[in-house]
Amino acid sequence: MSQKINKKNNKQAQLKVEKSDLWKLRHTAEHVLHQAMKELYPSIHLAMGPATEDGFYFDFDASPDGGEAVKILEEDFPKIEAKMQEIIDLNLPLIEKEISVAEARKLFAGNPYKLEWVDEIENKGEMVTVYWSGEPGSKRAMVDLCAGPHVDSTGQVKAFKLLSVAGAYWHGDEKNKMLTRIYGVAFPSKKELAQHLEMLVEAEKRNHRRIGKQMELFEIYPEIGQGLPVWLPKGYAMRRAIEDYMIWLERKYGYQHILTPHINRDVLFKKSGHLDFYAESMYPPIEFDDEKYYLKPMNCPAGMVVYKRKPRSYKDLPFKLGELGTVYRYEKSGELHGLQRVRGFTQNDAHIFCTEEQLKAQFQEVMEMLEIFYKDVGFDKYTFRFSLSDPKDDKYSFCGDRKGWEKMENIMREILNEAGVEYEEVVGDAAFYGPKLDVQAVNIFGKEDSISTIQVDFNLPERFELEYIDSDGQKKRPYVIHRAIVGSFERFFAFLIEHHAGKFPVWYAPVQVKLLPITDRNVEYAQKIVAQLLDEGIRVELDNRSETLSAKIRDAQLEQVPYMAVVGDREMENESVAIRSRDGKKQEVMKIAEFIEKLETEIKTKV
Amino acid sequence: MSQKINKKNNKQAQLKVEKSDLWKLRHTAEHVLHQAMKELYPSIHLAMGPATEDGFYFDFDASPDGGEAVKILEEDFPKIEAKMQEIIDLNLPLIEKEISVAEARKLFAGNPYKLEWVDEIENKGEMVTVYWSGEPGSKRAMVDLCAGPHVDSTGQVKAFKLLSVAGAYWHGDEKNKMLTRIYGVAFPSKKELAQHLEMLVEAEKRNHRRIGKQMELFEIYPEIGQGLPVWLPKGYAMRRAIEDYMIWLERKYGYQHILTPHINRDVLFKKSGHLDFYAESMYPPIEFDDEKYYLKPMNCPAGMVVYKRKPRSYKDLPFKLGELGTVYRYEKSGELHGLQRVRGFTQNDAHIFCTEEQLKAQFQEVMEMLEIFYKDVGFDKYTFRFSLSDPKDDKYSFCGDRKGWEKMENIMREILNEAGVEYEEVVGDAAFYGPKLDVQAVNIFGKEDSISTIQVDFNLPERFELEYIDSDGQKKRPYVIHRAIVGSFERFFAFLIEHHAGKFPVWYAPVQVKLLPITDRNVEYAQKIVAQLLDEGIRVELDNRSETLSAKIRDAQLEQVPYMAVVGDREMENESVAIRSRDGKKQEVMKIAEFIEKLETEIKTKV
Repeated sequence: MSQKINKKNNKQAQLKVEKSDLWKLRHTAEHVLHQAMKELYPSIHLAMGPATEDGFYFDFDASPDGGEAVKILEEDFPKIEAKMQEIIDLNLPLIEKEISVAEARKLFAGNPYKLEWVDEIENKGEMVTVYWSGEPGSKRAMVDLCAGPHVDSTGQVKAFKLLSVAGAYWHGDEKNKMLTRIYGVAFPSKKELAQHLEMLVEAEKRNHRRIGKQMELFEIYPEIGQGLPVWLPKGYAMRRAIEDYMIWLERKYGYQHILTPHINRDVLFKKSGHLDFYAESMYPPIEFDDEKYYLKPMNCPAGMVVYKRKPRSYKDLPFKLGELGTVYRYEKSGELHGLQRVRGFTQNDAHIFCTEEQLKAQFQEVMEMLEIFYKDVGFDKYTFRFSLSDPKDDKYSFCGDRKGWEKMENIMREILNEAGVEYEEVVGDAAFYGPKLDVQAVNIFGKEDSISTIQVDFNLPERFELEYIDSDGQKKRPYVIHRAIVGSFERFFAFLIEHHAGKFPVWYAPVQVKLLPITDRNVEYAQKIVAQLLDEGIRVELDNRSETLSAKIRDAQLEQVPYMAVVGDREMENESVAIRSRDGKKQEVMKIAEFIEKLETEIKTKV
Repeated sequence: MSQKINKKNNKQAQLKVEKSDLWKLRHTAEHVLHQAMKELYPSIHLAMGPATEDGFYFDFDASPDGGEAVKILEEDFPKIEAKMQEIIDLNLPLIEKEISVAEARKLFAGNPYKLEWVDEIENKGEMVTVYWSGEPGSKRAMVDLCAGPHVDSTGQVKAFKLLSVAGAYWHGDEKNKMLTRIYGVAFPSKKELAQHLEMLVEAEKRNHRRIGKQMELFEIYPEIGQGLPVWLPKGYAMRRAIEDYMIWLERKYGYQHILTPHINRDVLFKKSGHLDFYAESMYPPIEFDDEKYYLKPMNCPAGMVVYKRKPRSYKDLPFKLGELGTVYRYEKSGELHGLQRVRGFTQNDAHIFCTEEQLKAQFQEVMEMLEIFYKDVGFDKYTFRFSLSDPKDDKYSFCGDRKGWEKMENIMREILNEAGVEYEEVVGDAAFYGPKLDVQAVNIFGKEDSISTIQVDFNLPERFELEYIDSDGQKKRPYVIHRAIVGSFERFFAFLIEHHAGKFPVWYAPVQVKLLPITDRNVEYAQKIVAQLLDEGIRVELDNRSETLSAKIRDAQLEQVPYMAVVGDREMENESVAIRSRDGKKQEVMKIAEFIEKLETEIKTKV
């Protein structure tokens, strides 16, 4: 199941950003920042600072060898921002100059970071480009090694704000010195800045990394590994609920499920082509007993082996083989982000082996399942992205002929049009083995990723020489549709957490009910109800702290527990519970059996 | 969770076997076999052949370079057995001789396998030992490189039988030539042989490898990896049912569940001590980004990290943290056996963090859960094995002082005695980090393995500096109990399959109901019922082949499906189903809703 983000397109998007006016503005704002810092704290060494997609940052050495050490805290920001504003008000021109390596060495003498860069430029045999803010030699002029581009003058930075300060290793390498990094944003107008800051506040409320930690859903520990999240009890409870649901849904659609090992031998990945075409996303092999094993980056090869384990007949098709398969793929550490971009993740993967005639119906069925799934988990912010081959690109001639590609792409387009969904077509973005339809979602910070995918594969059936006996007794090659409705539980949860801001539907809420005994003499009764609910498979917690009822209610609301079941003397007498929903609407008294039935209905109907 | 089999004890048992009279008898029988083979097929090269725990085998090169190739099939066994009987009847004495390397080279000239062994002996600077069957130089005398021991003469082999023939690489290395291997058994009496053969027939009926393949529960593929089973749809359905059950049961007992990555950084295993004390069972590391990652051999270290993620209070204890954790441990390829001995397996693992006062109750609770679990899965052939430290063995002074060990061992003994269960005490068999109680089961061939375990750990709480704040405000160190009720899903399934011979209780049977429409016009009605059952989470299949009803019933019985639901015109009319159980007892007609209720009750009550 290829769930690889599209590196090419990301790069193109990045280039577009780097040429934009906004990017130039932020680049200039970064120069303003380092000029302000150097004027305020002359002892520091400027290291480096780029504009980014979201703003800018700047790294400096706050404790230079032999110099005075300074410590910058967020409370120093007003002072720094005032100095920046001063430099902006001076409206210094940004002036580009090419100078020789020798001149550069003189200009940056004493700053080991800049000199290291100069050495590098010298090694490449290039000239050095610098940018001056202000006429070279004038009183407030400032210079930096820089390839630009910038806006014309500092005065064009109409609105900016410093956001945070953090530690960062020089070149991102922990063997190097820890520098200080300041993050900021800049805009061409105060209004745009205000809107952005508001968006950040809203986003932060939904940030899955913050909610994940606060609600104890997941956590990433450096001693276990970057990009290798641990599912904490509440997160795992949710995940298990959605796993169980997917297995239930897929069984209804005739799927069968397998489970294959996390390491597979190299011969398998040679056969599948992964070692030829996907090696850069794979981890180095584990070698023992004269054999090489790889952490599987995809579940497909083992799925093909299971298809091939016995002769298949046209009567067995479509054969739908699912796996909750955990795969490991290399991502650069700088690209890792919470649950959204990780190094190991579990897919709700499946391979549909079918005849050509069945392709369309199978594709439609997956579209139907996607719709049911998104409705049931309460997620509606997605779009479709249809990735086609590029007739001019050689890589698409590798698998399948031109006619095969066009036929398949036409079938897919037809299905999409019949389904009446909106979609974007992207030429040249197909997998090398076939066209694909991705479901895209956008995170709180505006970053887009695939969350589900349906792909046609011309490659694996050939490589594994898959066959079925048709009704005419002839051996034929089946088609393979890869599909993952939950393309990665990890990534999907990132979106799900941000979408619901932690307020999940009852059926997969980590804790579905919290029992709140009013006094200590009601605890035993509460425990009895807890046991009953657990017996029915309902996720329940008991708050038996010696706190007031209102404190218990407040905490359960903060934890976003869908139902609070308050029990006091009256409830004990009537074998009942007083139910409050997390929205704090009306409280309703009901018999225990009635409450259980209500819960079971809501869980089953996924309201 | 240490589920390591006791290598020391296995080795001792092995040594005992090698010195036994039965072993000598089988060793002689093996010499009789190779003598018979060489007399019948003079062109073959004898390679090697040992006595084993169960019998003996012998490898030979059937297509020697430059010699006549022969092909041995099981239908040749009567002829070979007759020749063996002839040699036994001759009652040839077994005579040991020491000879020089030069003499050996002369004696075995032309046989590359024996000459390779002679070279090896020469390299070690040893004399060569050979065994003659019959006086050296006499007409029927035969000689082989052999260190013995043997019985006195071939006549003592009173009963033997050849069992099978298979291919085997020289030295077990696939880069070498494929040899032919013949397996056999031998006993001191015809009665013992008959009993053994009967046992083999019975065992074969229950052999989990055979049933696993036939019922499509699991399979091992060389291209994926030895010892790395793939769970096929029917096996995974069973496993998932038992997983879900364990989570349900554990939640009732207050457990919470996490999920941690399959690879962890080396720093974690340095801290836990695994790289010091367990490295030989671990796979080589995966190195990237200047870091080393290991496939986790145990789930404990990551569990400790989760405990430590926030301050814990005495009010949080006992804290029961479970994980369906998949671990990878190195086993030699020769030790691998179906699902019973594998290289990657999933544990129903848990760590109980508790105070000293809570230890006893926690231990008792796990014993109670064990009993419920074994009753619910219908497995009753187990014994308890209580592994203690050896006061004279230094390794036990490594963690905890002598007093601590004794105290803990006394508590455990007290619990076992109070529980009234029988158990065996084994001094010197504790883990280095604490005493343990294992649940042992014996497979169809008489081999014993641990299937569940409860262990006290003096090591990890120290190494990870675990703490909790006690009621007096003091920081104290908690105790850790490791426990795995399903020590390995893989191994436990091996025992479960053999125990039930594939006839599983309804609640975890891979297919619970099979719908059997009598004619084609009943298929649609059957499909409607299938959809209803699937909606309720019941595992159901439809047999819509154009076969007679009796053929469909026979096949469903062969597949050990608990319930067959026959539907014909009459059932369609009455919205009912005619239910047959796999035992072929009485057929019962009931309404669909009634049938669903019956199933749900049986699934819930685990009958």
